[in-house]
Amino acid sequence: MNTNAPVGIFDSGFGGLTVARAIVDLLPGEDLIYLGDTARAPYGPRPIAEVRTFALACLDALVDMGVKALVIACNSASAAVLADARERYSIPVVEVVLPAAKRAVRVSRTGKLAVLSTQATATSRAYEDAVSATDAELTTIVCPRFVDFVEAGITSGEELMGVAKDYLSPIIDTDVDTVILGCTHYPLLAGVISYVLGDQVTLVSSAEECATATYGTLANEGLLREGDQGVRRFLTTGNPQRFTKIASRLLGDFVNTTEAFEEVIVDPAHTHPRLPARSRRVQGNGKGVTAG
Amino acid sequence: MNTNAPVGIFDSGFGGLTVARAIVDLLPGEDLIYLGDTARAPYGPRPIAEVRTFALACLDALVDMGVKALVIACNSASAAVLADARERYSIPVVEVVLPAAKRAVRVSRTGKLAVLSTQATATSRAYEDAVSATDAELTTIVCPRFVDFVEAGITSGEELMGVAKDYLSPIIDTDVDTVILGCTHYPLLAGVISYVLGDQVTLVSSAEECATATYGTLANEGLLREGDQGVRRFLTTGNPQRFTKIASRLLGDFVNTTEAFEEVIVDPAHTHPRLPARSRRVQGNGKGVTAG
Repeated sequence: MNTNAPVGIFDSGFGGLTVARAIVDLLPGEDLIYLGDTARAPYGPRPIAEVRTFALACLDALVDMGVKALVIACNSASAAVLADARERYSIPVVEVVLPAAKRAVRVSRTGKLAVLSTQATATSRAYEDAVSATDAELTTIVCPRFVDFVEAGITSGEELMGVAKDYLSPIIDTDVDTVILGCTHYPLLAGVISYVLGDQVTLVSSAEECATATYGTLANEGLLREGDQGVRRFLTTGNPQRFTKIASRLLGDFVNTTEAFEEVIVDPAHTHPRLPARSRRVQGNGKGVTAG
Repeated sequence: MNTNAPVGIFDSGFGGLTVARAIVDLLPGEDLIYLGDTARAPYGPRPIAEVRTFALACLDALVDMGVKALVIACNSASAAVLADARERYSIPVVEVVLPAAKRAVRVSRTGKLAVLSTQATATSRAYEDAVSATDAELTTIVCPRFVDFVEAGITSGEELMGVAKDYLSPIIDTDVDTVILGCTHYPLLAGVISYVLGDQVTLVSSAEECATATYGTLANEGLLREGDQGVRRFLTTGNPQRFTKIASRLLGDFVNTTEAFEEVIVDPAHTHPRLPARSRRVQGNGKGVTAG
């Protein structure tokens, strides 16, 4: 595998940009291709089988572009598709659930954790599974409105504070000492979440942990690229102008331009994307790009 | 105090930009004024008394610009100047050492911590003091070369890996389970540091913790500004073009333009900045800006 190949980052929409930026912070020399399936976002409320179908189509597209590693920067998709992706591709696959779950178990003193997530992530029980071999107890809290606030650029104010207090009330003044931000939008709400929970509660960002895991995976596989600033491309299945605009609300100037990428969507109803019947799995030395 | 007033962020140079960006992530509606004393950076090797004199001159300048709160985004300066700043100004002062130390104590299971820092921070024993009332044991490791790598945009590669292994060797395969990134440049090296130490070690970012503390302080004081994207100004005592260039190596497009600000420096030898003899402290309700 060519170390100069880009890293492919997939998300259903915008939240994965926090992962992408965290990766750029740690690895400014890497080329990146970010694909946001915003035409079909949010994945949160969708059935897992549908999320899997959509996500694999997007990951296939990234692999076809020649990426050297895949980052699934979406908690909902990570839960649905990790096992399939590992089977399907010969390149390394990093995702957001396992690194965050591992960190949370490690930093908790009480063994009482909570994860804040979308409905799809909660339904998948991905975080429950990730901590099931430990003594930790996990409370799952579904916070569907948080994404709307983040995408509107609202991270403070009375309305958000009220919503946060409602969502978090089951764990306020309990033994829960560690809370996983189990949606890649939520690191941008760390201020209000920490304010409501109190600073004795440690927040674990799935974005930060995923970025560190990506660094470690590339280093272990001998895939780190050294050199000057990498090229970053941002692709969306939806409207590129809208993508750039919402991205700027989340992360300022991180995304300058966005390219349209509709190839993974063939059905205007967005429910039956093309999926090749053949397996893309490559047996063997793990060094080849799957060409389909 | 006007909630629309900007937040003042001070650093000796560039590292504080990680703090500034983390604050923007959590509080995109706040106006910010960042002052980097790059003409006299790095503070790390300087005597504490000199760091204090330089830092107070910069903080005075920010207060004169009407900021509603001060963030000392420099570990070396935090240690030297926090007590003075709290006495000197009536507005809230947030810094980087105490939030990070508190988090590290909270997340460690073994009680064995380490802090990576500059020489000035190590000499000040600020982190030792911050954890002295706990049962934690703290190992201090001075990592002077890390700043050079970050400012050169180098976060991977064999040379850096070798330097990191040398610095971190005293705590590799020990009971140290939590490492404070005690310099605001170091979060950009979280990948290599985590890779060398292993992912069983938790890294605590003084930048992230400071941003969350800033949110909490503004919320507690009723100083949060709601609204659209704030205005961000970046001032340097050094060369503005060089500031923008190095900032882009650290954080991409976060800093678009930098303004020259040499008022705090009157002596070309950079050793005797103007310091008003009068106290700027304002007694009373804590709501007024000190006008000097």
